[in-house]
Amino acid sequence: MTEHKNDPQAADSSPSVSRRGILGGTAVVSATALSGGAAYLNFVQQARAATENAEVKPGDLDEYYGFGSSGQTGEVRVFGMPSMRELVRIPVFNRDSATGWGLTNESRKILTEGLLPPSKKYLETRGGVYLNGDLHHPHVSFTDGTYDGRYLFVNDKANCRVARIRLDIFKTDKIIEVPNASDIHGLRPQKYPRTGYVFANSEHIIPIPNDGTVLDDPKNYWSVYTAIDGDKMEVAWQVLVDGNLDNTDCDYQGKYAFSTCYNPNKAVTTDAMTDHEQAWAVVFNIKRIEQAIKDGDYKVTNGVKIVDGRHGSKYTRYIPIPNSPHGCNTAPDGIHVVINGKLSPTVSVIDVRKLDDLFDSKIKERDVIVAEPELGLGPLHTAFDAHGNAYTTLFIDSQMVKWNIDKARKAFAGEKVDPILQKMDVHYQPGHNHTSMGETKDADGKWLVSLNKFSKDRFINVGPLKPNNDQLIDISGDEMKIVHDGAAFAEPHDLCIVHRSKINPISIYKRDDPMFEDARKWAAKDGVKLEEAANVIRDGNKVRVYMHSNAPKYSLEKFDVNEGDEVTVFLTNMDDVENLTHGFTIVRYGVAMEISPHMTASVTFKADRPGVHWWYCQWFCHALHMEMSGRMLVHPKQG
Amino acid sequence: MTEHKNDPQAADSSPSVSRRGILGGTAVVSATALSGGAAYLNFVQQARAATENAEVKPGDLDEYYGFGSSGQTGEVRVFGMPSMRELVRIPVFNRDSATGWGLTNESRKILTEGLLPPSKKYLETRGGVYLNGDLHHPHVSFTDGTYDGRYLFVNDKANCRVARIRLDIFKTDKIIEVPNASDIHGLRPQKYPRTGYVFANSEHIIPIPNDGTVLDDPKNYWSVYTAIDGDKMEVAWQVLVDGNLDNTDCDYQGKYAFSTCYNPNKAVTTDAMTDHEQAWAVVFNIKRIEQAIKDGDYKVTNGVKIVDGRHGSKYTRYIPIPNSPHGCNTAPDGIHVVINGKLSPTVSVIDVRKLDDLFDSKIKERDVIVAEPELGLGPLHTAFDAHGNAYTTLFIDSQMVKWNIDKARKAFAGEKVDPILQKMDVHYQPGHNHTSMGETKDADGKWLVSLNKFSKDRFINVGPLKPNNDQLIDISGDEMKIVHDGAAFAEPHDLCIVHRSKINPISIYKRDDPMFEDARKWAAKDGVKLEEAANVIRDGNKVRVYMHSNAPKYSLEKFDVNEGDEVTVFLTNMDDVENLTHGFTIVRYGVAMEISPHMTASVTFKADRPGVHWWYCQWFCHALHMEMSGRMLVHPKQG
Repeated sequence: MTEHKNDPQAADSSPSVSRRGILGGTAVVSATALSGGAAYLNFVQQARAATENAEVKPGDLDEYYGFGSSGQTGEVRVFGMPSMRELVRIPVFNRDSATGWGLTNESRKILTEGLLPPSKKYLETRGGVYLNGDLHHPHVSFTDGTYDGRYLFVNDKANCRVARIRLDIFKTDKIIEVPNASDIHGLRPQKYPRTGYVFANSEHIIPIPNDGTVLDDPKNYWSVYTAIDGDKMEVAWQVLVDGNLDNTDCDYQGKYAFSTCYNPNKAVTTDAMTDHEQAWAVVFNIKRIEQAIKDGDYKVTNGVKIVDGRHGSKYTRYIPIPNSPHGCNTAPDGIHVVINGKLSPTVSVIDVRKLDDLFDSKIKERDVIVAEPELGLGPLHTAFDAHGNAYTTLFIDSQMVKWNIDKARKAFAGEKVDPILQKMDVHYQPGHNHTSMGETKDADGKWLVSLNKFSKDRFINVGPLKPNNDQLIDISGDEMKIVHDGAAFAEPHDLCIVHRSKINPISIYKRDDPMFEDARKWAAKDGVKLEEAANVIRDGNKVRVYMHSNAPKYSLEKFDVNEGDEVTVFLTNMDDVENLTHGFTIVRYGVAMEISPHMTASVTFKADRPGVHWWYCQWFCHALHMEMSGRMLVHPKQG
Repeated sequence: MTEHKNDPQAADSSPSVSRRGILGGTAVVSATALSGGAAYLNFVQQARAATENAEVKPGDLDEYYGFGSSGQTGEVRVFGMPSMRELVRIPVFNRDSATGWGLTNESRKILTEGLLPPSKKYLETRGGVYLNGDLHHPHVSFTDGTYDGRYLFVNDKANCRVARIRLDIFKTDKIIEVPNASDIHGLRPQKYPRTGYVFANSEHIIPIPNDGTVLDDPKNYWSVYTAIDGDKMEVAWQVLVDGNLDNTDCDYQGKYAFSTCYNPNKAVTTDAMTDHEQAWAVVFNIKRIEQAIKDGDYKVTNGVKIVDGRHGSKYTRYIPIPNSPHGCNTAPDGIHVVINGKLSPTVSVIDVRKLDDLFDSKIKERDVIVAEPELGLGPLHTAFDAHGNAYTTLFIDSQMVKWNIDKARKAFAGEKVDPILQKMDVHYQPGHNHTSMGETKDADGKWLVSLNKFSKDRFINVGPLKPNNDQLIDISGDEMKIVHDGAAFAEPHDLCIVHRSKINPISIYKRDDPMFEDARKWAAKDGVKLEEAANVIRDGNKVRVYMHSNAPKYSLEKFDVNEGDEVTVFLTNMDDVENLTHGFTIVRYGVAMEISPHMTASVTFKADRPGVHWWYCQWFCHALHMEMSGRMLVHPKQG
């Protein structure tokens, strides 16, 4: 059974109940989601039947995509769920040997064109591209409060970048560096009306600009909240704020965005950063900020318009929250935003319907808090099902706690009711968690994943560097139940679980794909047709080699160059069989790249090793794959 | 139930039947393994009971390590089996963002010290290290015909390297570049008496030396067979051969090694490479070659002693095999070597007991072939169980064929017997296959993995670059049965399935680990104790920063340097909690590294970006992980 529409990958086409239909279409601020009803219970029962087993048998298909961040590995990992199988890796902020990410001209363009001038200069003597990244928060683009399957957005905490991944081809297509930020931590796409903005938090406080004129003077350190135009992949505006921004989310109405904010005293040591009773959830008034940009109420630093959103600003509100809030999660009901306590045992629940009054100064900051249940030690992040329940990770307790938002409101209002429904051990030290479709209005309450930082004794020993443990939890019944331990290399960090009906990738590149636009331009200039190419064009000491491939052959068996030539190889894979990816590796030249069906890829290098250098196909393609090779003959310099 | 001894990770300690005991201890050329017996059948029945289900429930431990190559990704992947969960990645020939492999001083030493001078020169302007690799064949070191758990050896086809991985800490400790080779393809460790040698094949033919003096003159191209001293990680000797060497294996007696050899006519185009009826299995006589080295019967090229093993040599024999053999697999019975046909539907079986007579010219080359069953289209590789059966991948047929070696011998001798026991579809285009403990004398006949190059429709769509499919097959019963489809990113290529009793990793580094010997030397020179360090040592424009860490703090909250300084940060993780890995990332500096418990790591960089640069811990370690940070204050150049 699947209750998601438009699912071309559905194994069967049996009639299914659409939760969206039951909930009435828009689902924004739907009372049904809170109170339940007969039709709704019927839906829930069907969901339970569908998720009684996590095993995906050989030949069966997963129902969900899991877009997993890899933390400091710098890539995106795509999982099939519920099997938790890693289906593909998407290189983003890392250097990938298999695809040539960071080496091919196409990837280097994406990795370099969005860099700021100081980084370009810094990288000049370092190969031109960053080789590391710290990819934290993957989120699919939204339209009208649910995933639209266009893009996946991710951030790099280490080198302050935000990247966009095309979900038609599962490849990164844009990366920008964010100025005036120390490290980019939290990231979320705008949910409504669409993405739209991609919101990004700068965590640590620094001087702005950070050019060395201010150094050990923390009172002149700041952080910024950044809105990126997700269509253009340009910074739209920034907001100057107090404190360290941590995680961020936004509403389902397109009016407000939220950030957790720790270190309110602008401390610079670990002890002092936590030496206080309260920090904040900062609320950003998007319409007012947009008006400020129109009205010119900003300063420009490093080319970006920065609106002053520090205490007292009309653009922001600082809602006091018990010490050092961390996670920031908007519920699918469109009403509630859960701010997770971290060093407080509580989470604080904001009702977004009260924010207009807060910004109009009709109520006080704390008046927007409608619940503050005490859940346990180290609440970090909260995920949601379709039934008004929330699931919060307790880092210190190593537990997942299931609680009910409505009951928490009632308890906060003074009723004698316990909002906690279940506490369950996880293994161990959970950070982020995520439910299937749970950050959209289409939350379906089937699966929950606990991304545990430590695995300790849960797997056979692999030495000092242990795996993390991504635990899959069935939440379709009354009780949470762990059904799978998923080992993971550094470091899952965050996840986004998307029903397969939302994603529609292609299998063979279109020949006009923008990814290889530059290759088409070069070919046009050289009078070469990429799809039939077998040409060597000499242009001074630059040599452009154009080849195409059909398994098991390249269109050239050899080419000659002179020692010292700058060589560019353009290779077009003309196999139109799905899955038939070719490769191109030159021995002892550090050159290797992927060319999937109907893709063109290119690489430029200096031919400064004389001799016979074989190139070969490194993606197993054919019974004669081993024979798919050719020779680059590099003639030595005379004299 | 486990029948493997010395298993510290066994979940229970119930009495178990030792197959090694049943087989009589040495198991080399054991007739029992071929013919069976009452005790042996008893063992087999117990093995069946143990493997009826591939699922490993939450909290349960896998029974086997799978050491998987990643092909062109350049890393080693360690799987738990039968769950097929990836437990950890070991960076080898790639650049890894998470661990700092390729960036830290410790890893750069390993990546550079074994490079040949021309590669060192070539990489001077390219960051000093290769960023890609093509890792094909992972094999654990042997003692007396079975795994001893000391090392894992792997090869890089792309840049001609062989690496060694320490299995106490699951980290690469030595990498050497092999001279006189085009691309290093096949690799195997010596099985008996121990490893000892690591044998490596050069595939494509090139001029030797390959310095540009010979270019488009294929009759002067050659390949070499290389024996590496696995203890010293130095090339011991090479043998000059005819044709392209493909895969390699060796015997259980320490006398002979074998390579498949295609392209006998020294062709350089795909068509011509296969335009012949026969190629060879080359047999290397290890004792005679060692004697040649003692006797001085070699030439030295690029510092390596090369023995002439071309046709007519006393050091080799070229056994004619139907067209283009590929896989080369020695059976656990210690008698049979299976040469896989690739373009012939047959595999050819060598009886090693006949090789002495062959080298003494008492018999002809083809007399050592004792079976040549016709199995199907595209036989690539063969794996073995404990019962005299073999499992061969059929690339073109997309099948796994189970056959019996003894029956194949009888059929070859003229008896009317069909050696084929079962053919089963796999999905799709299988390359390597591997059985649990199947390349040792302790083959246990429980699991078989088919590493399929194409997955086509077996997983939800992830765009043009599809996953491979590692299929897990239960072979404990009479019939093979597929129990799991395992998606894999580029490109599994080969696997080595090792019972967990053979591997004994540590969880916390010893402080005298050779990996950070240089850091200890620097600290001694600077009068610093790494374990308590909080020191900044200025040495001209070089600055050495020594820190240690205890969650959630570094021992320094800041350090000051001048723009242009060369900075080295030495960081020692003093947490002695298993699993408590720390990190060190400097924002916008491209600096990130792993420091596992009681490990020291260091990184050197030029501080040429002025301003306030936070460093932070990127391995989630503590409730105050976000606060675990500090500042590098880079004072700008004056004037």
